[in-house]
Amino acid sequence: MAAFSFRVTKKDPKTRARLGIITTAHGKIETPYFVPVATLASVRSLDSQDLEALGAQCTLANTYHLHLRPGDNIVKKCGGVQGFMGFNKPIFSDSGGFQAFSLGYGMEHNINKLGNIFPEGKKTAEKKKSMAKITDKGISFQSVYDGSWHFLDAKKSMKIQSHLGSDIIMAFDECTSPLSDYAYTKKAMERTHKWAKQCLKYYDKKQALYGIIQGGWFEDLRAQSTEFISSLPFEGIAIGGSLGQSKKDMHQILDWVIPQLDSRPRHLLGIGDIDDLFECVERGIDTFDCVSPTRIARRGSLYVCPESGGNVSNKFRISIKTAKYKSDKKPIDPRCSCSTCRNYSRAYLRHLYTTKELAYNRLASIHNVHFMLSLMEQIRSSIKKGTFSRLKSKWLRKKK
Amino acid sequence: MAAFSFRVTKKDPKTRARLGIITTAHGKIETPYFVPVATLASVRSLDSQDLEALGAQCTLANTYHLHLRPGDNIVKKCGGVQGFMGFNKPIFSDSGGFQAFSLGYGMEHNINKLGNIFPEGKKTAEKKKSMAKITDKGISFQSVYDGSWHFLDAKKSMKIQSHLGSDIIMAFDECTSPLSDYAYTKKAMERTHKWAKQCLKYYDKKQALYGIIQGGWFEDLRAQSTEFISSLPFEGIAIGGSLGQSKKDMHQILDWVIPQLDSRPRHLLGIGDIDDLFECVERGIDTFDCVSPTRIARRGSLYVCPESGGNVSNKFRISIKTAKYKSDKKPIDPRCSCSTCRNYSRAYLRHLYTTKELAYNRLASIHNVHFMLSLMEQIRSSIKKGTFSRLKSKWLRKKK
Repeated sequence: MAAFSFRVTKKDPKTRARLGIITTAHGKIETPYFVPVATLASVRSLDSQDLEALGAQCTLANTYHLHLRPGDNIVKKCGGVQGFMGFNKPIFSDSGGFQAFSLGYGMEHNINKLGNIFPEGKKTAEKKKSMAKITDKGISFQSVYDGSWHFLDAKKSMKIQSHLGSDIIMAFDECTSPLSDYAYTKKAMERTHKWAKQCLKYYDKKQALYGIIQGGWFEDLRAQSTEFISSLPFEGIAIGGSLGQSKKDMHQILDWVIPQLDSRPRHLLGIGDIDDLFECVERGIDTFDCVSPTRIARRGSLYVCPESGGNVSNKFRISIKTAKYKSDKKPIDPRCSCSTCRNYSRAYLRHLYTTKELAYNRLASIHNVHFMLSLMEQIRSSIKKGTFSRLKSKWLRKKK
Repeated sequence: MAAFSFRVTKKDPKTRARLGIITTAHGKIETPYFVPVATLASVRSLDSQDLEALGAQCTLANTYHLHLRPGDNIVKKCGGVQGFMGFNKPIFSDSGGFQAFSLGYGMEHNINKLGNIFPEGKKTAEKKKSMAKITDKGISFQSVYDGSWHFLDAKKSMKIQSHLGSDIIMAFDECTSPLSDYAYTKKAMERTHKWAKQCLKYYDKKQALYGIIQGGWFEDLRAQSTEFISSLPFEGIAIGGSLGQSKKDMHQILDWVIPQLDSRPRHLLGIGDIDDLFECVERGIDTFDCVSPTRIARRGSLYVCPESGGNVSNKFRISIKTAKYKSDKKPIDPRCSCSTCRNYSRAYLRHLYTTKELAYNRLASIHNVHFMLSLMEQIRSSIKKGTFSRLKSKWLRKKK
């Protein structure tokens, strides 16, 4: 049996927001929580000592990527993800199913999971060849590293995740595209359901397995998937993409799904932005994961709180490359207590960014991850005090 | 007057090696010492908190690069290099004269300062256009960033270095190529001498100015330059390139120059490798600077001590990308106490290196810089105990 449990410690009286504690063999996670992503057993630009210093409660590693490099057998030999990356805290792993979308339809149509052309800011979608082939048996993926083909199915995903030694693993699923039609989304959902039952059979019972609800942005499919997945003895429930073509769609999907769930922990895959944290916590999500804080940091976007000028319109971001910061001695966010803000100025960070100094990526990533984790702490504290809605409206009010 | 002094605290009875203490307004430097290079006010991949954690006593910033980016005026506004990079310890700066070589002759002939084809390992020298034009008045440099032309002379180099606020500054000089002939090297030396006197006139007297001895690998020129530079009231003496075409040439040059110097501190510019530390300390050098530890780290070369297999033939390096490390749970060097070796395995570092994870560069650089600084500590301790020659032969003996 998995050394896994989840306890809801408080519910917000006005919304579906809730406080909880996930317990695993590697420690506890206070929820709601934003899980930083360590795709290749490294939160990009950071090391595990940085994660410790940031007080990260857990991280999420990627099955597809670690299977290819360095190979899950090597990770196993080195003590699982914890031993390999030197981070002795709870580890989530995804199932590899997201790559059905990101290397398949997403690649062909050059879109991200919200239907936006990817990479962001690119004006035209340049279609590429799909790097994934999906059948009822499983998914054949082409390696992004050397072009070789690899087959994953429910059994293999469970085996790889067992090698990774993660505390919380995800059932093998097919993540569909926001551009998939009803018929395809239904077919993919049915496959996901079939695979879900296989995962329950094959998974390493020392780990905690989350089932993944699919169904795209179709209400009846989401309802069917919610009913099916939550009827199975998973330790937790994850909500997978596609989440529609806009944030509004995503909120709608959560409003369809979550009221139908029992008290098991709920994970939202691959989200989010600052506003998402509030909107999804309010709708009852316990944990999220996303590469966004470190990815946008590397591109020069750094988070600031409302008191320092952050708002919904600017996505709570400043662009450090802007010339106005060239001799600005203030920290990124004067309200922030991260080690970057305690030690370095906007002028210095702008200089490191513009000269492509490698130190920039880490200092910027420390700030953005700290910012997210600290915001989650404020959110948890507000739920405890019954002031969550007030905190949300303070952050999300429109700029006058 | 500069808050600068130097005291020799012990001399090795058998060699010219000596222990000393350089005192500056920003603190002391125990010598002999290897100064990590922060070209653009950042030791590449590391931040100033890392330098603190590594116990770095000082660093060296680059006049040419900081003049171009972000501009020395901005550095000045942000509190000099110390304030800008958040490192409140002694700072050296070079004069910009090295770029006369690296952007001039070095660029045209694609060689490094020891006459090797650059970048190392490249089979054929691909000649490029010179990016520097040198006259008796000064040096016109082309920006490596935007191709614009910039003029530096003794007065301007002193002004820029005053803006940088470094504790120890270098006189403006012309660094020649190992391929320069006698006539050209003589001409360049004469220019350097003329500029040396101008620097003494123009420099900010709150800083300590080191004169630079030139003369290439010609004995009579080195003798002339040594006599001339050391006759002037510089606070310290630096030995500049060209240092000949081999390590043997470099040792020969030091043996010509150093016995003619008085007790002022001696800095060797742009050196060194592990064996250089021993050879040059033995010949009486107090401080060195070099980008090598962080540069080779980024390329996958990590230092190991003799007990862990390091020797002159392998340059005390292992190549972390080698397949044999793929599931090796040992640290880079089991004898090393750096934070990378305390926390991560060769297998993990190899994985980060091969997948181009950004965290690799910093973890590898921490190890190599720690290794150099710790070796300098061992060297100082051996001089103190009178066992320097024994330490040197333990490290530099040929592999049987």
